Amino acid sequence: MKVTGLDKVPKVRMNMDGAKDAFKQIPISSADGTPSFSVRVFTIEPEGHTPYHTHPFEHLNYVIQGHGALVTEDGTERPVQQGDFVLVLPGEKHQYKNMASDQQLVMICAVPKEYE
Amino acid sequence: MKVTGLDKVPKVRMNMDGAKDAFKQIPISSADGTPSFSVRVFTIEPEGHTPYHTHPFEHLNYVIQGHGALVTEDGTERPVQQGDFVLVLPGEKHQYKNMASDQQLVMICAVPKEYE
Repeated sequence: MKVTGLDKVPKVRMNMDGAKDAFKQIPISSADGTPSFSVRVFTIEPEGHTPYHTHPFEHLNYVIQGHGALVTEDGTERPVQQGDFVLVLPGEKHQYKNMASDQQLVMICAVPKEYE
Repeated sequence: MKVTGLDKVPKVRMNMDGAKDAFKQIPISSADGTPSFSVRVFTIEPEGHTPYHTHPFEHLNYVIQGHGALVTEDGTERPVQQGDFVLVLPGEKHQYKNMASDQQLVMICAVPKEYE
């Protein structure tokens, strides 16, 4: 059993191509013995974004704070906000953008532990 | 891809033995085609609780609102509050209690989809 909070978890800047001002934490990781899924948190600064990309595994998201856009496969920007739950299926192209100029976009992104 | 909020998801009272004033929602379920994990949300009313129980799969929790106690295998009550992440491993006996008299305890509880 593990109980933790974001203030206790290291925060690292994403250095993937296409990422801008996005930071990653892993509150529940394979190092904790999680059997199958890891829980990551991304913090995107105002006007920042994650890469517009695809991968062979799903995302389970929950927006903890802020609002922004989820860019879908055809380039549509779907609005997302605090309290929203998102399922991105394997192979679906996607990107999270923080559209705010004054607030972080913070979201949970759970994935299979092999891809944490 | 699915985007949803708790106001759009049916809410059902838990009728398991040992549950008191606890309600369940499933924002991301096997019906949505989730490949491996489902995202459930439990709302526990003031002085309510989930069963004190064990099962052969893990919980990945995030406390959305409120504060309470996570009862562990030896009966210890660990405090949990908004913003906490919790990993309960398979076979670990546990219970969530809302210790507040005036506020709901709301938490995400992701589990393998077979057990949603």
